[in-house]
Amino acid sequence: MSSQSRITIEEFYRLTEAELPLMAYLNVDLVKLDPVETILRARCEEASLRPGGTVAGPVMMALADAAFFAVIMANIGMVKLAVTTNLSINFLRKPGPGDLNCHAGILKLGKRLAVCEARLYSGEFGRDEPVAHATGTYSIPPS
Amino acid sequence: MSSQSRITIEEFYRLTEAELPLMAYLNVDLVKLDPVETILRARCEEASLRPGGTVAGPVMMALADAAFFAVIMANIGMVKLAVTTNLSINFLRKPGPGDLNCHAGILKLGKRLAVCEARLYSGEFGRDEPVAHATGTYSIPPS
Amino acid sequence: MSSQSRITIEEFYRLTEAELPLMAYLNVDLVKLDPVETILRARCEEASLRPGGTVAGPVMMALADAAFFAVIMANIGMVKLAVTTNLSINFLRKPGPGDLNCHAGILKLGKRLAVCEARLYSGEFGRDEPVAHATGTYSIPPS
Amino acid sequence: MSSQSRITIEEFYRLTEAELPLMAYLNVDLVKLDPVETILRARCEEASLRPGGTVAGPVMMALADAAFFAVIMANIGMVKLAVTTNLSINFLRKPGPGDLNCHAGILKLGKRLAVCEARLYSGEFGRDEPVAHATGTYSIPPS
Repeated sequence: MSSQSRITIEEFYRLTEAELPLMAYLNVDLVKLDPVETILRARCEEASLRPGGTVAGPVMMALADAAFFAVIMANIGMVKLAVTTNLSINFLRKPGPGDLNCHAGILKLGKRLAVCEARLYSGEFGRDEPVAHATGTYSIPPS
Repeated sequence: MSSQSRITIEEFYRLTEAELPLMAYLNVDLVKLDPVETILRARCEEASLRPGGTVAGPVMMALADAAFFAVIMANIGMVKLAVTTNLSINFLRKPGPGDLNCHAGILKLGKRLAVCEARLYSGEFGRDEPVAHATGTYSIPPS
Repeated sequence: MSSQSRITIEEFYRLTEAELPLMAYLNVDLVKLDPVETILRARCEEASLRPGGTVAGPVMMALADAAFFAVIMANIGMVKLAVTTNLSINFLRKPGPGDLNCHAGILKLGKRLAVCEARLYSGEFGRDEPVAHATGTYSIPPS
Repeated sequence: MSSQSRITIEEFYRLTEAELPLMAYLNVDLVKLDPVETILRARCEEASLRPGGTVAGPVMMALADAAFFAVIMANIGMVKLAVTTNLSINFLRKPGPGDLNCHAGILKLGKRLAVCEARLYSGEFGRDEPVAHATGTYSIPPS
């Protein structure tokens, strides 16, 4: 697996503006764009996103889905638009105040399907204590 | 299973305002509040939610999660606040323009865990062609 | 969707003998072979399968997987050999003594992917109380 | 997290004989019993388990389920009997001939729920290429 992303950070932001409008609403930054590990961060400053000082489940799902898109494109480029076919998430701990980081990688990159995995970490926990774990399957259209 | 909801529609809207802020952003209506089948509708009029004339995956996940909360509360009332522990969704067809309806029911209602199921339908498809299918598990705290 | 299976019951048994050896070990009968709803039954008479008078989780997973194969082949015939890409199961109630019935149907039948759903029922519960619910995704090779 | 298992290897084998009869049929060895990473190996020598020289999906599901039980018991001991509530598996690559190793760990160990993760490796692939990835949720009865 190459360590060189096949899209640029600018291309990712342009795509999310056009295709993933929730990302702007959720205040998402692309921290690291890498075929092996891509990191997205939700700057959950908006009170509206954190009733009770926590991050809503759907925000974590949206963040994982976006991170999966990013890491797939880092591997195959933007020539093909992947489609989410399955997303499964286990919520493990209640995230605390502060940023939410999503670390996504590839479990399998086939010609027709990509399977991804992500761990989500809250600022206050260490790397041993993910607040959520997600897997996603993406269909890659024929080129 | 009773056919009488143990919360009112007003209580659900009050809860979503406080706890599920994405619901207002996503323009969600509670169409039917019933312990056996609860229906939520996302009025996806906002261009921002529908790049390419379709509904983003995370919108469908958020809608399913909210419908699961509603159907659980219709069964057990608001005395206990359930916590999502797992959500898994299969995206089946690309939803077309128009409203998105989420029909949620209960697979199991235990003392500690509730397991729910939902089918999501787009205006242009019939009831035989769901655009997505989701299951969710919720932990019910001790009373 | 046709109501006529595209494989025969004999073809299914021949395939399971060759490809799904666990099915014989688990004593599985094909009760109904139909593109809309296919039913498999595990005759769980063997003490070895039922410590504590119940059916082990992996037996239910194997039964759902076999039922998904059957219902897909009922729809597309045996020309293509589908491959399981994802299987997710929620265990809802402890199955009691007696047979276990798995009712499987299709959520989506695409050219490349089929998504199936199954409910598993134990003899002592009615149709309103499934003991497990499973979904499966299958990759259909190009013909 | 302690690095000392709270059950012995003998206790695990005694439990599987009583509770997980498929394990004997599948010829499973406990390679490493550790709260952080527990490893089970299926010695897939039986022709019946490998039509086409591969390992059937249900065998991998059964192996992951047993590994999850083992790693949970390594953490909490045998005083409580956990119950599988959800198991989700992604099949990534066709396993080749030879042994199948399942490496299981804990994502979350709560008082009521444990969430586990496993990667399955086939002899011929390296550690970078799992043949399957599974997550499981287990309900821990009150003591």
